[in-house]
Amino acid sequence: MAANDSVVVIGLGRFGRSLATELVEENTEVLGIDLDADTVQSMSGVLTHVVRADSTKEEVLRQLAVHEFTRAVVSIGTNLEASILTASLLVSFGIPDVWGKATSEAHGRILSQLGVHHVVYPEHDMGQRVAHLVRGRMLDYIEFEDDFALVKTRTPSEMADRTLAESAIRTRFGLTVVAVKRPGEGFTYATADTVLRPDDTVIVAGRTEQTERFSELH
Amino acid sequence: MAANDSVVVIGLGRFGRSLATELVEENTEVLGIDLDADTVQSMSGVLTHVVRADSTKEEVLRQLAVHEFTRAVVSIGTNLEASILTASLLVSFGIPDVWGKATSEAHGRILSQLGVHHVVYPEHDMGQRVAHLVRGRMLDYIEFEDDFALVKTRTPSEMADRTLAESAIRTRFGLTVVAVKRPGEGFTYATADTVLRPDDTVIVAGRTEQTERFSELH
Amino acid sequence: MAANDSVVVIGLGRFGRSLATELVEENTEVLGIDLDADTVQSMSGVLTHVVRADSTKEEVLRQLAVHEFTRAVVSIGTNLEASILTASLLVSFGIPDVWGKATSEAHGRILSQLGVHHVVYPEHDMGQRVAHLVRGRMLDYIEFEDDFALVKTRTPSEMADRTLAESAIRTRFGLTVVAVKRPGEGFTYATADTVLRPDDTVIVAGRTEQTERFSELH
Amino acid sequence: MAANDSVVVIGLGRFGRSLATELVEENTEVLGIDLDADTVQSMSGVLTHVVRADSTKEEVLRQLAVHEFTRAVVSIGTNLEASILTASLLVSFGIPDVWGKATSEAHGRILSQLGVHHVVYPEHDMGQRVAHLVRGRMLDYIEFEDDFALVKTRTPSEMADRTLAESAIRTRFGLTVVAVKRPGEGFTYATADTVLRPDDTVIVAGRTEQTERFSELH
Amino acid sequence: MAANDSVVVIGLGRFGRSLATELVEENTEVLGIDLDADTVQSMSGVLTHVVRADSTKEEVLRQLAVHEFTRAVVSIGTNLEASILTASLLVSFGIPDVWGKATSEAHGRILSQLGVHHVVYPEHDMGQRVAHLVRGRMLDYIEFEDDFALVKTRTPSEMADRTLAESAIRTRFGLTVVAVKRPGEGFTYATADTVLRPDDTVIVAGRTEQTERFSELH
Amino acid sequence: MAANDSVVVIGLGRFGRSLATELVEENTEVLGIDLDADTVQSMSGVLTHVVRADSTKEEVLRQLAVHEFTRAVVSIGTNLEASILTASLLVSFGIPDVWGKATSEAHGRILSQLGVHHVVYPEHDMGQRVAHLVRGRMLDYIEFEDDFALVKTRTPSEMADRTLAESAIRTRFGLTVVAVKRPGEGFTYATADTVLRPDDTVIVAGRTEQTERFSELH
Amino acid sequence: MAANDSVVVIGLGRFGRSLATELVEENTEVLGIDLDADTVQSMSGVLTHVVRADSTKEEVLRQLAVHEFTRAVVSIGTNLEASILTASLLVSFGIPDVWGKATSEAHGRILSQLGVHHVVYPEHDMGQRVAHLVRGRMLDYIEFEDDFALVKTRTPSEMADRTLAESAIRTRFGLTVVAVKRPGEGFTYATADTVLRPDDTVIVAGRTEQTERFSELH
Amino acid sequence: MAANDSVVVIGLGRFGRSLATELVEENTEVLGIDLDADTVQSMSGVLTHVVRADSTKEEVLRQLAVHEFTRAVVSIGTNLEASILTASLLVSFGIPDVWGKATSEAHGRILSQLGVHHVVYPEHDMGQRVAHLVRGRMLDYIEFEDDFALVKTRTPSEMADRTLAESAIRTRFGLTVVAVKRPGEGFTYATADTVLRPDDTVIVAGRTEQTERFSELH
Repeated sequence: MAANDSVVVIGLGRFGRSLATELVEENTEVLGIDLDADTVQSMSGVLTHVVRADSTKEEVLRQLAVHEFTRAVVSIGTNLEASILTASLLVSFGIPDVWGKATSEAHGRILSQLGVHHVVYPEHDMGQRVAHLVRGRMLDYIEFEDDFALVKTRTPSEMADRTLAESAIRTRFGLTVVAVKRPGEGFTYATADTVLRPDDTVIVAGRTEQTERFSELH
Repeated sequence: MAANDSVVVIGLGRFGRSLATELVEENTEVLGIDLDADTVQSMSGVLTHVVRADSTKEEVLRQLAVHEFTRAVVSIGTNLEASILTASLLVSFGIPDVWGKATSEAHGRILSQLGVHHVVYPEHDMGQRVAHLVRGRMLDYIEFEDDFALVKTRTPSEMADRTLAESAIRTRFGLTVVAVKRPGEGFTYATADTVLRPDDTVIVAGRTEQTERFSELH
Repeated sequence: MAANDSVVVIGLGRFGRSLATELVEENTEVLGIDLDADTVQSMSGVLTHVVRADSTKEEVLRQLAVHEFTRAVVSIGTNLEASILTASLLVSFGIPDVWGKATSEAHGRILSQLGVHHVVYPEHDMGQRVAHLVRGRMLDYIEFEDDFALVKTRTPSEMADRTLAESAIRTRFGLTVVAVKRPGEGFTYATADTVLRPDDTVIVAGRTEQTERFSELH
Repeated sequence: MAANDSVVVIGLGRFGRSLATELVEENTEVLGIDLDADTVQSMSGVLTHVVRADSTKEEVLRQLAVHEFTRAVVSIGTNLEASILTASLLVSFGIPDVWGKATSEAHGRILSQLGVHHVVYPEHDMGQRVAHLVRGRMLDYIEFEDDFALVKTRTPSEMADRTLAESAIRTRFGLTVVAVKRPGEGFTYATADTVLRPDDTVIVAGRTEQTERFSELH
Repeated sequence: MAANDSVVVIGLGRFGRSLATELVEENTEVLGIDLDADTVQSMSGVLTHVVRADSTKEEVLRQLAVHEFTRAVVSIGTNLEASILTASLLVSFGIPDVWGKATSEAHGRILSQLGVHHVVYPEHDMGQRVAHLVRGRMLDYIEFEDDFALVKTRTPSEMADRTLAESAIRTRFGLTVVAVKRPGEGFTYATADTVLRPDDTVIVAGRTEQTERFSELH
Repeated sequence: MAANDSVVVIGLGRFGRSLATELVEENTEVLGIDLDADTVQSMSGVLTHVVRADSTKEEVLRQLAVHEFTRAVVSIGTNLEASILTASLLVSFGIPDVWGKATSEAHGRILSQLGVHHVVYPEHDMGQRVAHLVRGRMLDYIEFEDDFALVKTRTPSEMADRTLAESAIRTRFGLTVVAVKRPGEGFTYATADTVLRPDDTVIVAGRTEQTERFSELH
Repeated sequence: MAANDSVVVIGLGRFGRSLATELVEENTEVLGIDLDADTVQSMSGVLTHVVRADSTKEEVLRQLAVHEFTRAVVSIGTNLEASILTASLLVSFGIPDVWGKATSEAHGRILSQLGVHHVVYPEHDMGQRVAHLVRGRMLDYIEFEDDFALVKTRTPSEMADRTLAESAIRTRFGLTVVAVKRPGEGFTYATADTVLRPDDTVIVAGRTEQTERFSELH
Repeated sequence: MAANDSVVVIGLGRFGRSLATELVEENTEVLGIDLDADTVQSMSGVLTHVVRADSTKEEVLRQLAVHEFTRAVVSIGTNLEASILTASLLVSFGIPDVWGKATSEAHGRILSQLGVHHVVYPEHDMGQRVAHLVRGRMLDYIEFEDDFALVKTRTPSEMADRTLAESAIRTRFGLTVVAVKRPGEGFTYATADTVLRPDDTVIVAGRTEQTERFSELH
């Protein structure tokens, strides 16, 4: 296993497991490390290499050649101390691309101060995303930048059976329709001539506030 | 507080707090409930109403008029039993729109069997999303449907200083460029005449595999 | 062991053990499952098959072919979470006849919501039954329906050495005498000519309140 | 509260609560004692008197005048030591009628050795009872003596629309039909002229084995 | 090992160990039982037989033939429940001579109620004994009956170099001098002619109060 | 409370309580100290002064004027560390008479090394004493010196209805009879003319081995 | 209290307490913070300000104006997580002089990575220092640099009653004698004319190895 | 391993490990003992002998021949009881040179009372030492006697580029300059002719207060 093409994922809870599985499906080699024997066993057929090891010990990580990887993810969830000890070692190894999962603001700040390059907050980010779904008629929502979001929603009734040109969505809402999906079919890119049917699913992009407003149409 | 316009959020950990805060910022009234006094106090200036209460007891929820809400979120994270007991009560109240956060597959299955209407898996979903960022040159990634993704990336060098029409992205990759962002400016929708600069950020949409391929261009 | 003729009993505490032993004595094959090694060993000579296994894991249950049974009992007592996880799996297998032992009202409601077909409350039901014994002169008491009970009691003195016809129990109390037992003998069915002796044991049936009244005679 | 007409119930878990509630509904005064404040509060409107107290201390019981009661129930479930310490005190008070709930054979033997007058095993007894329901077509089952049981079941098809005299149940099965219930009505006592309808519920009494055989008819 | 000549000692803490060792030194065979492996090992060279076993389980005791002994000591100290469970089994075996060590009044009462023949209270009895030593000039003190004690003390100065007859101890104090010990020699029985030397040790017997008074002489 | 006439007893478990109560009954003032509120309360009517305090803290002991006492007993039982910390302070105060209760050999050695003046081992000493009772016909036994014991026993049958002179106990056994007790009466000192009745209780003194031999007579 | 002249000491265990007390004795104002109420109370008369507070919470530290200090010491000993969370906050406040006590190498590395300016290892450093005392005749030893130490020792017998010039310590050992102390007097600086008496204490400085060799002289 | 030339170090935490390692580097043989398997393994290549053993048991220490050593260090840190039990045994063996590490004043007093010859307080001593560094411009500080300290500091600006004779440090401050270090070089002993450069490091000795005053010069 060529360490410099692969990713080491330390901590195989829900987040780490999902991340590692996705990497493997996209043909990236993964070394998975976890302290729990059951977790390791259940992942042994899925990942390229999985070992049960205590990642807070320098000699353990060196034996696994972790210091030779160029990309590492610290996805230890429940044990703040273990997350910090592990991240500290990865940074001290000089690994150029270290990712860390934070479970709180303080956790994230510490990872950054230690020198972790990318810090992610799954619970926080998903909380924001789901807030938009709970509120309204959206089927999915994602904010790509501070003020630019994409929304999946049903066809508003007033736009049903009309072309996008006729509905003038860009003019009226400042939004662009990216793609449209007919039930049972895949997505197709929208053009000015695309006609929205009442039960179509539509993906629109634009400023956060405007996508909210659009999704409240009936 | 008109219960039928508001959302009750039970469990104010990272996910619940982030969800509840986002709702309040979008002008939705929120009743937050948590068992921990510190958590409740720290949210008391943020949410419309926050109370410290044991949500696993029917009489407690009734006193808070939870049975009169039309939308409820069970975002209890670490205590499986409390999550299930609470969800069971909300379903027994006949609340029409109950959301539940699951921390494992089994947890999700139980919530569904109890009759929870929407089950979300933050750790799992964020793991998938981050996998794409760890692998390549993407700046962000989101899958909207099983086979339709949006990707934020830098301008590939071969397309720099050319119009989108010249680059023929739709023809060559089967992708559509949704928006483009110049450093220091906001996003603008892309047209055939848009010229990509070397340091622009680009959002493209299309089939999962094709977005991956596109993001690997240098 | 033909799974479709047998019963799987998960949780071999007092209730599960007693239930499983009774089934075996009536020639029904039983697969007993428990997490505790001592419990499993002590039942190994008694039941058809006993295994130590974690019933909250789907793969474990499938290896034991639990999904092929048509009758299953979840008699896990002290661990609410394990009871719910196990019941959820049995329901997801589509087993047509799932029984669950509940230790509280909430536990019972959750089992029902999950789709468990029969929920029993031993502590609650026995509490009711014993209440009648504590109060009066009854030797045993059982309520078959909401308002129909059977009572075992001693011969009231006023009815001693008279036939049932003479005592007119049905007329005066609205009760029927089912059977009578002389000390050292078995029960015999009562007829109008049956003479009650002072030290006989009598089983009477009728409305709850009337059996109570009857048992208070001296 | 006249102690000699009342019952003191120590331990208000599922069994004790159900027992105490049933007593109150039958107009018997009850003094309930439990160590847990929540339990005591939830029963405060239900029982005549409920106090939070440590029943393992002699002076505590004396202050509550427990030594003046003539009937006492020790229904402490999970704490073997507390059950034994409490029962020991009740016996040393010379209370003439002490009941104890046992959770294991050893527990029951100790209660008997201490001098407790009646020992009940809810989990064990209900396990036996439910075994009969799991096996066959019975709706309910109860064994009154070692070899005399009562069974609730549906009308066997071969006996539908015939009088009991015609079906000759006593001759053929050695059983007596006690009562019959039509859907939506109460039970009525059976006579030789009673006609069983296909969807009637029937209560029969007789020797254990014969009731089993009867319930297996279709 | 002939069980009917031997003693089984269950619980090898300070008390049990000291008791068992003393028995062995007096040529009585002892079967020692304890739950702790270290304790068992440290006694293996000292007692006739020592086994590590859980004495609360009937089958375990039977395998060790404990039910065939005629004398048994339950010297389990810190675990009330284990002490009671074990004593209950020994009594149920019908062993004719069961001794139990009690650590509290309640413990002692329960052992008696179970049917244990002799109950001893080491902490309580030694507390009383030491009280007399702490108070005064006694070297040792023991109460044989409620009002009859023996005391070891130094020669009171007023009696030094006089015969017991001259000191008239019986007349003045109602006490009898049992024995006298000169430094470096053994005890000799006292007679009227015995002369007490200033540094002799004297054992006197008599009523509790009078021995106290005697020991306060200088 | 004049500290120099009184005794401070630290640790009011079985041993300390019994010791302190005995002292009070003999008119010695006692200051009792314990960490447990319940224990302190239950002794508050019994001892001269009882306080709840942490005896391991120097300033606490000084506030209670413990350093001014001349006699102190450390009877802390279960917490080795607390026993040692307390004894260390008492010794550092220069109290002239410090007693310590040891629960093991190591505990006793440490107390001695710290400078505690008298170390007692209740469990060990009572174990030895009871060993003699378990073995034979003795009613009580106490060893005053290494080779001088007192034994309470029943009249051996061969000596019944004879004077002590006739039985020649001193000649034959090397023992002296100290006192005799008729059923229902107190002890009286034995003389050569005392006649032993079959149901008398006898106290004899002498060398350990000889008392054993005497007690084995029938 | 002018925060910029003072020192905040967080964690008042042995190290923190000793450090804070020394600072106060040298007239530096100290704000002491600890989580334990007893610790805070015992220091309340000693330090300028002592508060009980949870130093892992940003809002708590800000309320205490900790962010305005220019010198801070994190002397939390046993709780690694609390030490790291606190140090992370102090660094994020931009305090220019942050000291941290490390209990292990990993702890020290993390403190450095977070940006703590000075990391000290009391246990490690004292271990080294005591090693020199355990080995030989030194009375004290300290290493100021990697290869420069100071040693306190007794006068070697061969140098007794001679001037330093005569002993030629610099020539023979490469050492310099710094000071000399006569019993009962203070230190005086050594000169070439200083005569060493047999019971003087001498402080010599020089290379580590040479001080060792010197201290082995008799 | 000749026990009388070697040192036994019991407890291999930070202090013990550092001490033992330093001893080995100075060619003293060390027997290291610790209860923790990981600790023992990590030291197995470093010390002469390392064993995992429970040092609170006499027989264990004797098997390791600890009683034959002449020098022993008890460096058990976190478990007060184990430290005391171990020290008690070493003293009872009569080892002539026993060192003990104390974590509190009470701990230290107990070790002394037990008879430990040298007691050290690392946390307390290092706290004092660091206090001087936190306050001022010193680079290091050590107090050798109650009123005699050595300080490492930078050249005060007013003394830069002058000889020590010109600066008259002894006259003005009552201090002596022991040694001087130029950047990148070792220390050299100071003479009257030594010229201090601005970036030199200087070691001065003298009375505590005067060294403080000196270090405050700029």
